[in-house]
Amino acid sequence: MRICLIGAGNVATQLGIALREKGHQIVQVWSQTSKSAARLSEILKAPYTTELNSLVSDAEIYILAVKDYAIEPILASHNWGQNLVVHTAGSIPISVFEDHCTNFGVFYPFQTFSVNKKVSFDNLPLCIEANSKKNLNNLFKLASTLSYFVRQYDSVQRQQLHLAAVFACNFVNHLYFVGNELLEEKGIAFEILIPLILETASKVISQNPKSAQTGPAVRNDEVTLNKHLELLKDKPDLQTIYNQISKRIIETYK
Amino acid sequence: MRICLIGAGNVATQLGIALREKGHQIVQVWSQTSKSAARLSEILKAPYTTELNSLVSDAEIYILAVKDYAIEPILASHNWGQNLVVHTAGSIPISVFEDHCTNFGVFYPFQTFSVNKKVSFDNLPLCIEANSKKNLNNLFKLASTLSYFVRQYDSVQRQQLHLAAVFACNFVNHLYFVGNELLEEKGIAFEILIPLILETASKVISQNPKSAQTGPAVRNDEVTLNKHLELLKDKPDLQTIYNQISKRIIETYK
Repeated sequence: MRICLIGAGNVATQLGIALREKGHQIVQVWSQTSKSAARLSEILKAPYTTELNSLVSDAEIYILAVKDYAIEPILASHNWGQNLVVHTAGSIPISVFEDHCTNFGVFYPFQTFSVNKKVSFDNLPLCIEANSKKNLNNLFKLASTLSYFVRQYDSVQRQQLHLAAVFACNFVNHLYFVGNELLEEKGIAFEILIPLILETASKVISQNPKSAQTGPAVRNDEVTLNKHLELLKDKPDLQTIYNQISKRIIETYK
Repeated sequence: MRICLIGAGNVATQLGIALREKGHQIVQVWSQTSKSAARLSEILKAPYTTELNSLVSDAEIYILAVKDYAIEPILASHNWGQNLVVHTAGSIPISVFEDHCTNFGVFYPFQTFSVNKKVSFDNLPLCIEANSKKNLNNLFKLASTLSYFVRQYDSVQRQQLHLAAVFACNFVNHLYFVGNELLEEKGIAFEILIPLILETASKVISQNPKSAQTGPAVRNDEVTLNKHLELLKDKPDLQTIYNQISKRIIETYK
């Protein structure tokens, strides 16, 4: 497909690279700043613009991979005519397009992206939604060239997917960071945590997270729980988090 | 080495299997109940007992892989003579041995174990501590037959390791469980979270968790944070956890 990519952040970069590798043509890249537009243009070997009114008119799909708050202003600043326009955001409902576009949808890659870390799209869940059967079919075709894992979800489900990802990815990463902080304090390098982190993640492939739970809270081991709270006595924020999650684990297995 | 394994839970099982695979001889297994003792005895092709006073006297090392609260009572219930005795617990200081043994130490495998999931020991961090140079050397030799990753840590460091593991493993697993709960509510199967969970874990091999952080809190995206809190309005426990971790992420990147 001939694709116009609007945005130049983590998602735009990784999605653009994957699309290009699968033989799609990135016909244009837009970003607000010429620096980031030029950077992605270089990576994707595609011309760039920083002006919405210089967007090509003949792309087969316009993918908005921009920050949530930028979606509506961009939609409102351009005449999209009959073009198919999608966004890539978990928490923005499809209704955001209604006043601005005729053919529209959502193309939400359910993954965490960094600008500099390449991500495999082969089994990356792509969640699609569209305002018509025809547009949905087009999105399904495009998604299927990238991944084996394509699902249709509505805006309510997608919002919940995003919320689940905050817990299972963003908060998880912060807990890795907390682990690192605690170890640094005692002169222990982070690398010692890596086998544990990888095993904890890989465990939930073969068993569900309920049965995979280990640790003092699931055993309701009050002696250890209290020892840990004592170790955290000068870190009230961590003490609160420790308490809240432990309580919830104890409740879950009661 | 000729090893007497005291305990038959997750750690005893996986450690026993690994020791046997590396050519060590499990000369005896002890467990309080004959059912669990017989189960592990069958796996390790070793005789078992449920009586502490029937322990063999000529093992080269006695490994106590039992629940934290059981360590001291077991130590107090047997005459260990000059035998080398170790425990495998993160949160129990080496001083627990002082009134009961002459030669002692700690052999703490820094990993999460399930009875039924085999774990690779090759790069599993083994944290050792001992009451003498000679005992430390023996523990180092034994540990080195199992893993490339052997480190000497004192009881204060080991306690902090255990605390870090609660955040980076036990709490992480509970957040996977929360993700699963939220998705189930909207009829979405857990498998969609797996690529995200694996990518989040594998990211911290190549970059530190501070720079790997993504999501609404690190962007201080108040619109999304408020949307999520609203979605959690009937789940006050999750709302509290959401708030506390988000606040800490915002503080960390301010």
